[in-house]
Amino acid sequence: MASQGWLKLHSERVESALDRLLDSPQTIPHRLHEAMRYAARGGGKRIRPLLVYAAGQLGKSSSADQEQMLDAAAVAVECIHAYSLVHDDMPCMDDDDLRRGRPTVHKAFDEATALLVGDALQTRAFEVLATAPGDANQRLKMIACLAAASGSRGMAGGQAIDLESVGKKLDLPGLKQMHAMKTGALLSCAVELGGIAANLNAEQLAKLDQYSKALGLAFQIVDDVLDATADSQTLGKTAGKDAAANKPTYVTLMGLDYAQQQAKELQEIAMSSLDGFGIQAQALKDLALLVVNRGK
Amino acid sequence: MASQGWLKLHSERVESALDRLLDSPQTIPHRLHEAMRYAARGGGKRIRPLLVYAAGQLGKSSSADQEQMLDAAAVAVECIHAYSLVHDDMPCMDDDDLRRGRPTVHKAFDEATALLVGDALQTRAFEVLATAPGDANQRLKMIACLAAASGSRGMAGGQAIDLESVGKKLDLPGLKQMHAMKTGALLSCAVELGGIAANLNAEQLAKLDQYSKALGLAFQIVDDVLDATADSQTLGKTAGKDAAANKPTYVTLMGLDYAQQQAKELQEIAMSSLDGFGIQAQALKDLALLVVNRGK
Repeated sequence: MASQGWLKLHSERVESALDRLLDSPQTIPHRLHEAMRYAARGGGKRIRPLLVYAAGQLGKSSSADQEQMLDAAAVAVECIHAYSLVHDDMPCMDDDDLRRGRPTVHKAFDEATALLVGDALQTRAFEVLATAPGDANQRLKMIACLAAASGSRGMAGGQAIDLESVGKKLDLPGLKQMHAMKTGALLSCAVELGGIAANLNAEQLAKLDQYSKALGLAFQIVDDVLDATADSQTLGKTAGKDAAANKPTYVTLMGLDYAQQQAKELQEIAMSSLDGFGIQAQALKDLALLVVNRGK
Repeated sequence: MASQGWLKLHSERVESALDRLLDSPQTIPHRLHEAMRYAARGGGKRIRPLLVYAAGQLGKSSSADQEQMLDAAAVAVECIHAYSLVHDDMPCMDDDDLRRGRPTVHKAFDEATALLVGDALQTRAFEVLATAPGDANQRLKMIACLAAASGSRGMAGGQAIDLESVGKKLDLPGLKQMHAMKTGALLSCAVELGGIAANLNAEQLAKLDQYSKALGLAFQIVDDVLDATADSQTLGKTAGKDAAANKPTYVTLMGLDYAQQQAKELQEIAMSSLDGFGIQAQALKDLALLVVNRGK
Protein backbone atom coordinates (compact mmCIF):
# COMPACT_ATOMS: atom_id res chain seq x y z
CA MET A 1 0.00 0.00 0.00
CA ALA A 2 1.11 3.51 -0.78
CA SER A 3 0.55 4.97 2.63
CA GLN A 4 2.18 2.75 5.21
CA GLY A 5 3.78 6.00 6.36
CA TRP A 6 0.36 7.61 6.88
CA LEU A 7 -0.90 4.59 8.78
CA LYS A 8 2.11 4.46 11.08
CA LEU A 9 2.01 8.19 11.74
CA HIS A 10 -1.68 8.22 12.54
CA SER A 11 -1.62 5.02 14.57
CA GLU A 12 0.96 6.74 16.75
CA ARG A 13 -1.18 9.85 16.83
CA VAL A 14 -4.16 7.81 18.13
CA GLU A 15 -2.06 6.32 20.94
CA SER A 16 -0.63 9.68 21.86
CA ALA A 17 -4.07 11.35 21.89
CA LEU A 18 -5.51 8.54 24.03
CA ASP A 19 -2.60 8.85 26.43
CA ARG A 20 -3.12 12.60 26.68
CA LEU A 21 -6.92 12.64 26.92
CA LEU A 22 -7.51 9.73 29.30
CA ASP A 23 -7.02 10.39 32.99
CA SER A 24 -3.73 9.30 34.50
CA PRO A 25 -3.71 6.29 36.87
CA GLN A 26 -2.40 8.79 39.45
CA THR A 27 -5.85 10.42 39.45
CA ILE A 28 -8.26 9.17 42.16
CA PRO A 29 -9.71 6.57 42.00
CA HIS A 30 -6.45 4.99 40.83
CA ARG A 31 -7.74 1.53 40.11
CA LEU A 32 -10.65 2.74 37.97
CA HIS A 33 -8.36 4.96 35.90
CA GLU A 34 -5.84 2.17 35.54
CA ALA A 35 -8.61 -0.15 34.34
CA MET A 36 -9.93 2.46 31.90
CA ARG A 37 -6.47 2.69 30.35
CA TYR A 38 -6.19 -1.10 30.30
CA ALA A 39 -9.46 -1.19 28.34
CA ALA A 40 -8.75 1.67 25.95
CA ARG A 41 -5.01 1.27 25.43
CA GLY A 42 -4.70 -2.48 24.94
CA GLY A 43 -3.93 -2.38 21.26
CA GLY A 44 -6.41 -3.14 18.53
CA LYS A 45 -6.32 -1.86 14.98
CA ARG A 46 -7.80 1.56 15.86
CA ILE A 47 -9.88 1.49 12.69
CA ARG A 48 -12.42 4.02 13.98
CA PRO A 49 -9.97 6.75 15.03
CA LEU A 50 -7.99 6.16 11.82
CA LEU A 51 -11.22 6.73 9.87
CA VAL A 52 -11.68 10.02 11.75
CA TYR A 53 -8.23 11.24 10.72
CA ALA A 54 -8.56 9.95 7.15
CA ALA A 55 -11.89 11.73 6.62
CA GLY A 56 -10.55 14.77 8.46
CA GLN A 57 -7.97 15.45 5.76
CA LEU A 58 -10.57 15.85 3.00
CA GLY A 59 -11.13 19.52 3.83
CA LYS A 60 -9.65 22.48 2.00
CA SER A 61 -7.46 23.62 4.83
CA SER A 62 -6.69 22.76 8.41
CA SER A 63 -6.23 24.87 11.53
CA ALA A 64 -4.70 24.00 14.90
CA ASP A 65 -8.23 23.93 16.35
CA GLN A 66 -9.37 21.48 13.68
CA GLU A 67 -6.43 19.19 14.38
CA GLN A 68 -7.32 19.19 18.08
CA MET A 69 -10.94 18.53 17.23
CA LEU A 70 -9.80 15.53 15.18
CA ASP A 71 -7.82 14.23 18.16
CA ALA A 72 -10.87 14.67 20.39
CA ALA A 73 -13.10 12.89 17.88
CA ALA A 74 -10.59 10.06 17.43
CA VAL A 75 -10.38 9.54 21.19
CA ALA A 76 -14.13 9.87 21.66
CA VAL A 77 -15.03 7.25 19.08
CA GLU A 78 -12.38 4.86 20.41
CA CYS A 79 -13.63 5.34 24.00
CA ILE A 80 -17.15 4.45 22.85
CA HIS A 81 -15.83 1.39 21.02
CA ALA A 82 -13.72 0.33 24.01
CA TYR A 83 -16.64 0.77 26.43
CA SER A 84 -18.85 -1.39 24.22
CA LEU A 85 -16.24 -4.17 24.16
CA VAL A 86 -15.83 -4.09 27.96
CA HIS A 87 -19.57 -4.39 28.54
CA ASP A 88 -20.03 -6.87 25.70
CA ASP A 89 -17.43 -9.21 27.23
CA MET A 90 -19.13 -9.29 30.64
CA PRO A 91 -20.67 -12.54 31.91
CA CYS A 92 -24.25 -11.32 31.44
CA MET A 93 -23.51 -10.57 27.76
CA ASP A 94 -21.01 -12.62 25.72
CA ASP A 95 -19.06 -13.89 28.76
CA ASP A 96 -15.68 -13.70 27.07
CA ASP A 97 -12.31 -14.15 28.81
CA LEU A 98 -10.05 -13.00 26.02
CA ARG A 99 -9.88 -9.72 24.08
CA ARG A 100 -7.03 -8.54 21.89
CA GLY A 101 -5.02 -11.47 23.23
CA ARG A 102 -5.33 -10.33 26.87
CA PRO A 103 -7.74 -11.10 29.72
CA THR A 104 -10.94 -9.06 29.40
CA VAL A 105 -11.45 -6.23 31.93
CA HIS A 106 -13.75 -8.20 34.23
CA LYS A 107 -11.13 -10.98 34.29
CA ALA A 108 -8.10 -8.71 34.79
CA PHE A 109 -9.97 -6.62 37.40
CA ASP A 110 -13.49 -7.63 38.45
CA GLU A 111 -17.05 -7.39 37.17
CA ALA A 112 -18.07 -4.29 39.09
CA THR A 113 -14.95 -2.48 37.88
CA ALA A 114 -15.66 -3.57 34.30
CA LEU A 115 -19.16 -2.14 34.58
CA LEU A 116 -17.82 1.20 35.85
CA VAL A 117 -14.98 1.25 33.30
CA GLY A 118 -17.47 0.97 30.46
CA ASP A 119 -19.73 3.59 32.01
CA ALA A 120 -16.88 6.04 32.58
CA LEU A 121 -15.30 5.52 29.16
CA GLN A 122 -18.61 6.43 27.59
CA THR A 123 -18.84 9.58 29.71
CA ARG A 124 -15.25 10.50 28.84
CA ALA A 125 -16.04 10.25 25.13
CA PHE A 126 -18.63 13.00 25.38
CA GLU A 127 -16.54 15.05 27.80
CA VAL A 128 -13.56 15.07 25.45
CA LEU A 129 -15.70 16.44 22.62
CA ALA A 130 -17.43 18.98 24.87
CA THR A 131 -14.13 20.39 26.16
CA ALA A 132 -12.06 20.33 22.94
CA PRO A 133 -11.07 23.62 21.32
CA GLY A 134 -12.85 24.65 18.15
CA ASP A 135 -16.18 25.79 16.82
CA ALA A 136 -19.07 25.14 19.23
CA ASN A 137 -21.58 24.18 16.56
CA GLN A 138 -19.23 21.67 15.00
CA ARG A 139 -18.59 20.05 18.36
CA LEU A 140 -22.30 19.86 19.16
CA LYS A 141 -22.88 18.19 15.78
CA MET A 142 -20.14 15.69 16.64
CA ILE A 143 -21.66 14.93 20.04
CA ALA A 144 -25.10 14.46 18.49
CA CYS A 145 -23.60 12.20 15.80
CA LEU A 146 -21.74 10.07 18.34
CA ALA A 147 -24.77 9.77 20.61
CA ALA A 148 -27.11 8.78 17.79
CA ALA A 149 -24.61 6.19 16.53
CA SER A 150 -23.95 4.61 19.92
CA GLY A 151 -27.30 4.81 21.74
CA SER A 152 -30.52 2.82 21.67
CA ARG A 153 -31.13 3.57 17.97
CA GLY A 154 -27.52 2.68 17.17
CA MET A 155 -24.89 0.45 18.71
CA ALA A 156 -26.65 -0.35 22.01
CA GLY A 157 -29.89 -1.02 20.12
CA GLY A 158 -28.05 -3.35 17.76
CA GLN A 159 -26.66 -5.25 20.72
CA ALA A 160 -30.18 -5.60 22.13
CA ILE A 161 -31.41 -7.02 18.81
CA ASP A 162 -28.36 -9.32 18.69
CA LEU A 163 -29.20 -10.69 22.16
CA GLU A 164 -32.80 -11.33 21.16
CA SER A 165 -31.68 -13.12 17.99
CA VAL A 166 -29.79 -15.98 19.68
CA GLY A 167 -31.41 -19.23 18.63
CA LYS A 168 -33.83 -17.35 16.35
CA LYS A 169 -33.72 -17.34 12.59
CA LEU A 170 -32.96 -13.75 11.63
CA ASP A 171 -33.28 -13.37 7.87
CA LEU A 172 -30.78 -11.41 5.78
CA PRO A 173 -32.58 -8.03 6.01
CA GLY A 174 -32.92 -8.53 9.79
CA LEU A 175 -29.25 -9.42 10.09
CA LYS A 176 -28.30 -6.35 8.03
CA GLN A 177 -30.37 -4.04 10.20
CA MET A 178 -28.86 -5.50 13.36
CA HIS A 179 -25.31 -5.03 12.11
CA ALA A 180 -25.99 -1.61 10.63
CA MET A 181 -26.94 -0.56 14.17
CA LYS A 182 -24.46 -2.62 16.18
CA THR A 183 -21.28 -2.00 14.16
CA GLY A 184 -22.06 0.07 11.11
CA ALA A 185 -23.42 3.14 12.91
CA LEU A 186 -20.21 3.79 14.87
CA LEU A 187 -17.97 3.21 11.85
CA SER A 188 -20.07 5.64 9.80
CA CYS A 189 -20.00 8.07 12.69
CA ALA A 190 -16.17 7.95 12.79
CA VAL A 191 -16.05 8.96 9.13
CA GLU A 192 -18.71 11.64 9.68
CA LEU A 193 -16.85 13.11 12.67
CA GLY A 194 -13.82 13.61 10.45
CA GLY A 195 -16.02 15.17 7.78
CA ILE A 196 -17.62 17.55 10.29
CA ALA A 197 -14.21 18.64 11.60
CA ALA A 198 -13.08 19.20 7.99
CA ASN A 199 -16.12 21.38 7.35
CA LEU A 200 -17.28 19.34 4.34
CA ASN A 201 -20.47 20.34 2.53
CA ALA A 202 -23.65 18.26 2.42
CA GLU A 203 -22.81 16.70 -0.96
CA GLN A 204 -19.39 15.61 0.25
CA LEU A 205 -20.83 14.23 3.48
CA ALA A 206 -23.35 12.22 1.44
CA LYS A 207 -20.50 10.63 -0.51
CA LEU A 208 -18.71 9.84 2.72
CA ASP A 209 -21.91 8.29 4.01
CA GLN A 210 -22.06 6.00 0.97
CA TYR A 211 -18.43 5.03 1.58
CA SER A 212 -18.91 4.30 5.26
CA LYS A 213 -22.16 2.35 4.85
CA ALA A 214 -20.49 0.01 2.35
CA LEU A 215 -17.41 -0.22 4.55
CA GLY A 216 -19.49 -0.98 7.66
CA LEU A 217 -21.31 -3.84 5.98
CA ALA A 218 -18.05 -5.21 4.53
CA PHE A 219 -16.48 -4.95 7.98
CA GLN A 220 -19.15 -7.14 9.54
CA ILE A 221 -19.16 -9.70 6.76
CA VAL A 222 -15.38 -10.04 7.13
CA ASP A 223 -15.88 -10.38 10.89
CA ASP A 224 -18.24 -13.29 10.34
CA VAL A 225 -15.87 -14.85 7.82
CA LEU A 226 -13.00 -14.59 10.29
CA ASP A 227 -15.12 -15.99 13.09
CA ALA A 228 -15.88 -19.00 10.91
CA THR A 229 -12.35 -19.55 9.56
CA ALA A 230 -9.64 -18.16 11.86
CA ASP A 231 -8.40 -19.51 15.18
CA SER A 232 -8.50 -17.65 18.52
CA GLN A 233 -4.83 -16.78 18.44
CA THR A 234 -5.10 -14.98 15.11
CA LEU A 235 -8.25 -13.18 16.21
CA GLY A 236 -7.02 -12.24 19.67
CA LYS A 237 -10.46 -13.26 20.92
CA THR A 238 -12.44 -16.47 21.16
CA ALA A 239 -13.17 -17.79 17.65
CA GLY A 240 -16.24 -19.71 16.52
CA LYS A 241 -18.41 -18.13 19.23
CA ASP A 242 -21.23 -17.13 16.93
CA ALA A 243 -21.63 -20.59 15.49
CA ALA A 244 -21.44 -22.06 19.01
CA ALA A 245 -24.17 -19.68 20.20
CA ASN A 246 -26.31 -20.55 17.19
CA LYS A 247 -26.29 -16.88 16.17
CA PRO A 248 -27.16 -16.10 12.56
CA THR A 249 -24.16 -14.74 10.60
CA TYR A 250 -23.53 -13.73 7.01
CA VAL A 251 -21.61 -16.97 6.60
CA THR A 252 -24.43 -19.18 7.89
CA LEU A 253 -27.01 -17.24 5.85
CA MET A 254 -25.07 -16.75 2.57
CA GLY A 255 -22.33 -19.36 2.68
CA LEU A 256 -18.61 -18.63 2.94
CA ASP A 257 -17.89 -18.05 -0.77
CA TYR A 258 -20.75 -15.64 -1.36
CA ALA A 259 -19.92 -13.76 1.86
CA GLN A 260 -16.33 -13.27 0.74
CA GLN A 261 -17.45 -12.12 -2.69
CA GLN A 262 -19.91 -9.66 -1.14
CA ALA A 263 -17.16 -8.18 1.02
CA LYS A 264 -15.07 -7.56 -2.10
CA GLU A 265 -17.97 -5.90 -3.92
CA LEU A 266 -18.73 -3.65 -0.98
CA GLN A 267 -15.10 -2.68 -0.81
CA GLU A 268 -15.30 -1.57 -4.45
CA ILE A 269 -18.45 0.46 -3.78
CA ALA A 270 -16.66 2.12 -0.88
CA MET A 271 -13.66 2.95 -3.04
CA SER A 272 -15.69 4.39 -5.93
CA SER A 273 -17.71 6.60 -3.55
CA LEU A 274 -14.48 8.51 -3.00
CA ASP A 275 -13.79 9.24 -6.67
CA GLY A 276 -14.57 12.95 -6.41
CA PHE A 277 -12.11 13.59 -3.60
CA GLY A 278 -8.87 12.91 -5.51
CA ILE A 279 -5.58 12.12 -3.86
CA GLN A 280 -6.70 13.36 -0.43
CA ALA A 281 -8.94 10.29 -0.14
CA GLN A 282 -6.02 7.87 -0.41
CA ALA A 283 -6.01 7.16 3.35
CA LEU A 284 -9.74 6.32 3.33
CA LYS A 285 -9.15 3.99 0.37
CA ASP A 286 -6.28 2.29 2.15
CA LEU A 287 -8.44 1.81 5.23
CA ALA A 288 -11.12 0.16 3.12
CA LEU A 289 -8.49 -2.30 1.86
CA LEU A 290 -7.26 -2.82 5.40
CA VAL A 291 -10.75 -3.59 6.71
CA VAL A 292 -11.57 -6.16 4.04
CA ASN A 293 -8.16 -7.84 4.09
CA ARG A 294 -7.62 -7.79 7.84
CA GLY A 295 -6.71 -10.76 10.00
CA LYS A 296 -5.16 -12.75 7.18
CA MET B 1 -44.59 24.95 52.36
CA ALA B 2 -45.45 27.94 50.23
CA SER B 3 -44.89 26.37 46.87
CA GLN B 4 -46.73 23.08 46.72
CA GLY B 5 -48.12 24.53 43.51
CA TRP B 6 -44.62 25.01 42.07
CA LEU B 7 -43.63 21.48 43.05
CA LYS B 8 -46.71 19.91 41.53
CA LEU B 9 -46.37 21.93 38.31
CA HIS B 10 -42.70 21.10 37.87
CA SER B 11 -43.03 17.46 38.85
CA GLU B 12 -45.57 17.18 36.05
CA ARG B 13 -43.21 19.06 33.75
CA VAL B 14 -40.43 16.53 34.47
CA GLU B 15 -42.70 13.61 33.63
CA SER B 16 -43.94 15.27 30.47
CA ALA B 17 -40.39 16.15 29.33
CA LEU B 18 -39.22 12.57 30.00
CA ASP B 19 -42.17 11.22 28.07
CA ARG B 20 -41.41 13.52 25.15
CA LEU B 21 -37.62 13.11 25.07
CA LEU B 22 -37.30 9.35 25.64
CA ASP B 23 -37.86 7.10 22.64
CA SER B 24 -41.26 5.48 22.34
CA PRO B 25 -41.56 1.71 22.95
CA GLN B 26 -42.79 1.60 19.33
CA THR B 27 -39.22 2.43 18.23
CA ILE B 28 -36.99 -0.57 17.38
CA PRO B 29 -35.71 -2.29 19.49
CA HIS B 30 -39.03 -2.26 21.32
CA ARG B 31 -37.97 -4.15 24.43
CA LEU B 32 -34.93 -1.95 25.05
CA HIS B 33 -36.98 1.22 24.74
CA GLU B 34 -39.68 -0.21 26.96
CA ALA B 35 -37.05 -1.08 29.56
CA MET B 36 -35.47 2.39 29.31
CA ARG B 37 -38.85 3.92 30.08
CA TYR B 38 -39.40 1.45 32.92
CA ALA B 39 -36.09 2.60 34.41
CA ALA B 40 -36.52 6.33 33.90
CA ARG B 41 -40.26 6.68 34.41
CA GLY B 42 -40.79 4.55 37.49
CA GLY B 43 -41.45 7.41 39.89
CA GLY B 44 -38.98 8.74 42.38
CA LYS B 45 -38.87 12.22 43.81
CA ARG B 46 -37.18 13.74 40.75
CA ILE B 47 -34.99 15.91 42.98
CA ARG B 48 -32.33 16.48 40.33
CA PRO B 49 -34.61 17.71 37.54
CA LEU B 50 -36.53 19.82 40.07
CA LEU B 51 -33.22 21.42 41.06
CA VAL B 52 -32.59 22.21 37.38
CA TYR B 53 -35.92 24.02 37.07
CA ALA B 54 -35.56 25.76 40.43
CA ALA B 55 -32.10 27.12 39.58
CA GLY B 56 -33.27 27.90 36.05
CA GLN B 57 -35.72 30.51 37.29
CA LEU B 58 -33.02 32.64 38.93
CA GLY B 59 -32.24 34.46 35.68
CA LYS B 60 -33.48 37.90 34.67
CA SER B 61 -35.65 36.72 31.85
CA SER B 62 -36.60 33.57 30.05
CA SER B 63 -36.99 32.69 26.38
CA ALA B 64 -38.67 29.74 24.70
CA ASP B 65 -35.20 28.36 23.89
CA GLN B 66 -34.16 28.62 27.52
CA GLU B 67 -37.26 26.77 28.65
CA GLN B 68 -36.49 23.97 26.20
CA MET B 69 -32.87 23.90 27.38
CA LEU B 70 -34.17 23.49 30.92
CA ASP B 71 -36.34 20.56 29.82
CA ALA B 72 -33.35 19.00 28.09
CA ALA B 73 -31.16 19.50 31.17
CA ALA B 74 -33.84 18.10 33.49
CA VAL B 75 -34.22 15.00 31.34
CA ALA B 76 -30.46 14.61 30.88
CA VAL B 77 -29.67 14.70 34.59
CA GLU B 78 -32.51 12.29 35.37
CA CYS B 79 -31.35 9.89 32.63
CA ILE B 80 -27.86 9.88 34.18
CA HIS B 81 -29.34 9.28 37.62
CA ALA B 82 -31.60 6.51 36.33
CA TYR B 83 -28.74 4.81 34.46
CA SER B 84 -26.62 4.83 37.62
CA LEU B 85 -29.42 3.20 39.62
CA VAL B 86 -29.94 0.49 37.00
CA HIS B 87 -26.24 -0.42 36.94
CA ASP B 88 -25.87 -0.01 40.71
CA ASP B 89 -28.66 -2.52 41.32
CA MET B 90 -27.08 -5.21 39.13
CA PRO B 91 -25.80 -8.45 40.72
CA CYS B 92 -22.12 -7.50 40.25
CA MET B 93 -22.71 -4.24 42.14
CA ASP B 94 -25.29 -3.96 44.96
CA ASP B 95 -27.42 -6.91 43.78
CA ASP B 96 -30.72 -5.30 44.68
CA ASP B 97 -34.14 -6.64 43.75
CA LEU B 98 -36.24 -3.64 44.72
CA ARG B 99 -36.12 -0.02 43.58
CA ARG B 100 -38.81 2.60 44.11
CA GLY B 101 -41.05 -0.23 45.30
CA ARG B 102 -40.80 -2.17 42.02
CA PRO B 103 -38.53 -4.95 40.73
CA THR B 104 -35.19 -3.58 39.55
CA VAL B 105 -34.57 -3.57 35.78
CA HIS B 106 -32.49 -6.76 35.75
CA LYS B 107 -35.29 -8.49 37.68
CA ALA B 108 -38.17 -7.12 35.59
CA PHE B 109 -36.23 -7.77 32.34
CA ASP B 110 -32.83 -9.48 32.47
CA GLU B 111 -29.22 -8.61 33.27
CA ALA B 112 -28.05 -8.01 29.72
CA THR B 113 -30.99 -5.70 29.10
CA ALA B 114 -30.25 -3.83 32.34
CA LEU B 115 -26.67 -3.31 31.21
CA LEU B 116 -27.82 -1.92 27.84
CA VAL B 117 -30.57 0.18 29.44
CA GLY B 118 -28.02 1.93 31.63
CA ASP B 119 -25.63 2.39 28.72
CA ALA B 120 -28.30 3.79 26.44
CA LEU B 121 -29.83 6.09 29.08
CA GLN B 122 -26.42 7.63 29.57
CA THR B 123 -26.04 8.15 25.83
CA ARG B 124 -29.51 9.66 25.62
CA ALA B 125 -28.63 12.19 28.33
CA PHE B 126 -25.85 13.67 26.20
CA GLU B 127 -27.88 13.40 23.01
CA VAL B 128 -30.77 15.35 24.48
CA LEU B 129 -28.46 18.22 25.44
CA ALA B 130 -26.64 18.14 22.10
CA THR B 131 -29.87 18.37 20.10
CA ALA B 132 -31.84 20.84 22.24
CA PRO B 133 -32.54 24.31 20.86
CA GLY B 134 -30.61 27.23 22.30
CA ASP B 135 -27.15 28.74 22.46
CA ALA B 136 -24.40 26.32 21.40
CA ASN B 137 -21.87 27.46 23.99
CA GLN B 138 -24.35 27.10 26.83
CA ARG B 139 -25.20 23.58 25.73
CA LEU B 140 -21.53 22.60 25.45
CA LYS B 141 -20.98 23.93 28.98
CA MET B 142 -23.90 21.82 30.15
CA ILE B 143 -22.54 18.69 28.47
CA ALA B 144 -19.10 19.27 29.98
CA CYS B 145 -20.66 19.85 33.40
CA LEU B 146 -22.76 16.68 33.20
CA ALA B 147 -19.83 14.59 32.00
CA ALA B 148 -17.47 15.84 34.72
CA ALA B 149 -20.11 15.20 37.38
CA SER B 150 -20.98 11.70 36.24
CA GLY B 151 -17.68 10.27 34.98
CA SER B 152 -14.61 8.74 36.58
CA ARG B 153 -13.82 11.92 38.56
CA GLY B 154 -17.45 12.20 39.65
CA MET B 155 -20.29 9.74 40.16
CA ALA B 156 -18.70 6.64 38.58
CA GLY B 157 -15.45 7.36 40.45
CA GLY B 158 -17.38 7.67 43.72
CA GLN B 159 -18.98 4.30 43.07
CA ALA B 160 -15.54 2.78 42.49
CA ILE B 161 -14.32 4.19 45.82
CA ASP B 162 -17.51 2.95 47.49
CA LEU B 163 -16.88 -0.58 46.20
CA GLU B 164 -13.31 -0.53 47.48
CA SER B 165 -14.44 0.70 50.89
CA VAL B 166 -16.58 -2.32 51.81
CA GLY B 167 -15.16 -3.86 54.96
CA LYS B 168 -12.54 -1.09 55.20
CA LYS B 169 -12.52 1.72 57.73
CA LEU B 170 -13.02 4.88 55.68
CA ASP B 171 -12.58 7.88 57.97
CA LEU B 172 -14.87 10.90 57.83
CA PRO B 173 -12.84 12.88 55.23
CA GLY B 174 -12.64 9.74 53.08
CA LEU B 175 -16.38 9.17 53.41
CA LYS B 176 -17.06 12.81 52.51
CA GLN B 177 -14.90 12.62 49.39
CA MET B 178 -16.57 9.42 48.29
CA HIS B 179 -20.06 10.88 48.69
CA ALA B 180 -19.08 14.22 47.16
CA MET B 181 -18.19 12.26 44.03
CA LYS B 182 -20.87 9.56 44.15
CA THR B 183 -23.92 11.69 44.95
CA GLY B 184 -22.89 15.29 45.48
CA ALA B 185 -21.40 15.92 42.06
CA LEU B 186 -24.59 15.12 40.15
CA LEU B 187 -26.80 17.12 42.54
CA SER B 188 -24.47 20.12 42.18
CA CYS B 189 -24.47 19.63 38.45
CA ALA B 190 -28.27 19.73 38.36
CA VAL B 191 -28.22 23.12 40.07
CA GLU B 192 -25.42 24.34 37.80
CA LEU B 193 -27.25 23.23 34.64
CA GLY B 194 -30.17 25.43 35.67
CA GLY B 195 -27.76 28.28 36.39
CA ILE B 196 -26.09 27.92 32.98
CA ALA B 197 -29.46 27.92 31.19
CA ALA B 198 -30.44 31.03 33.18
CA ASN B 199 -27.21 32.77 32.09
CA LEU B 200 -26.12 33.54 35.66
CA ASN B 201 -22.82 35.32 36.23
CA ALA B 202 -19.79 33.78 37.97
CA GLU B 203 -20.64 35.28 41.36
CA GLN B 204 -24.16 33.90 41.24
CA LEU B 205 -22.91 30.48 40.11
CA ALA B 206 -20.49 30.47 43.07
CA LYS B 207 -23.40 31.05 45.46
CA LEU B 208 -25.32 28.26 43.80
CA ASP B 209 -22.29 26.03 44.19
CA GLN B 210 -22.20 26.74 47.94
CA TYR B 211 -25.91 25.89 48.11
CA SER B 212 -25.57 22.66 46.19
CA LYS B 213 -22.47 21.40 48.02
CA ALA B 214 -24.22 21.80 51.39
CA LEU B 215 -27.36 20.25 49.97
CA GLY B 216 -25.44 17.31 48.52
CA LEU B 217 -23.78 16.48 51.81
CA ALA B 218 -27.07 16.86 53.69
CA PHE B 219 -28.72 14.60 51.13
CA GLN B 220 -26.27 11.79 51.78
CA ILE B 221 -26.37 12.13 55.56
CA VAL B 222 -30.17 11.89 55.44
CA ASP B 223 -29.79 8.85 53.17
CA ASP B 224 -27.64 7.15 55.78
CA VAL B 225 -30.03 8.14 58.55
CA LEU B 226 -32.95 6.69 56.61
CA ASP B 227 -31.02 3.53 55.82
CA ALA B 228 -30.42 3.07 59.55
CA THR B 229 -33.91 3.95 60.76
CA ALA B 230 -36.60 3.36 58.10
CA ASP B 231 -38.02 0.10 56.80
CA SER B 232 -37.88 -1.13 53.19
CA GLN B 233 -41.49 -0.24 52.50
CA THR B 234 -40.99 3.41 53.42
CA LEU B 235 -37.76 3.60 51.44
CA GLY B 236 -39.03 1.72 48.38
CA LYS B 237 -35.71 -0.10 48.40
CA THR B 238 -33.98 -2.58 50.68
CA ALA B 239 -33.22 -0.91 54.05
CA GLY B 240 -30.25 -1.57 56.31
CA LYS B 241 -28.09 -2.67 53.39
CA ASP B 242 -25.11 -0.49 54.28
CA ALA B 243 -24.91 -1.78 57.81
CA ALA B 244 -25.30 -5.35 56.54
CA ALA B 245 -22.45 -4.83 54.06
CA ASN B 246 -20.29 -3.32 56.80
CA LYS B 247 -20.02 -0.12 54.75
CA PRO B 248 -19.00 3.01 56.62
CA THR B 249 -21.84 5.57 56.85
CA TYR B 250 -22.29 8.96 58.49
CA VAL B 251 -24.41 7.24 61.11
CA THR B 252 -21.81 4.60 61.97
CA LEU B 253 -19.03 7.23 61.97
CA MET B 254 -20.81 10.10 63.77
CA GLY B 255 -23.72 8.45 65.54
CA LEU B 256 -27.40 9.02 64.73
CA ASP B 257 -27.97 12.19 66.77
CA TYR B 258 -24.95 14.04 65.46
CA ALA B 259 -25.72 12.98 61.89
CA GLN B 260 -29.25 14.39 62.17
CA GLN B 261 -27.94 17.62 63.68
CA GLN B 262 -25.36 17.95 60.87
CA ALA B 263 -28.06 17.53 58.23
CA LYS B 264 -30.02 20.40 59.82
CA GLU B 265 -26.96 22.66 59.90
CA LEU B 266 -26.13 21.94 56.29
CA GLN B 267 -29.70 22.72 55.34
CA GLU B 268 -29.30 26.14 56.98
CA ILE B 269 -26.04 26.78 55.13
CA ALA B 270 -27.78 25.88 51.89
CA MET B 271 -30.67 28.25 52.64
CA SER B 272 -28.44 31.20 53.58
CA SER B 273 -26.35 30.79 50.41
CA LEU B 274 -29.45 31.88 48.52
CA ASP B 275 -29.99 35.14 50.42
CA GLY B 276 -28.93 37.37 47.54
CA PHE B 277 -31.45 35.90 45.09
CA GLY B 278 -34.65 37.05 46.79
CA ILE B 279 -38.05 35.55 46.15
CA GLN B 280 -36.95 33.77 42.95
CA ALA B 281 -34.94 31.35 45.10
CA GLN B 282 -38.02 30.11 46.97
CA ALA B 283 -38.19 26.89 44.97
CA LEU B 284 -34.53 26.07 45.72
CA LYS B 285 -35.20 26.72 49.41
CA ASP B 286 -38.23 24.48 49.38
CA LEU B 287 -36.20 21.73 47.72
CA ALA B 288 -33.58 21.99 50.47
CA LEU B 289 -36.34 21.46 53.03
CA LEU B 290 -37.70 18.58 50.99
CA VAL B 291 -34.32 16.84 50.79
CA VAL B 292 -33.60 17.04 54.52
CA ASN B 293 -37.11 16.12 55.64
CA ARG B 294 -37.75 13.41 53.03
CA GLY B 295 -38.94 9.92 53.73
CA LYS B 296 -40.58 10.74 57.06
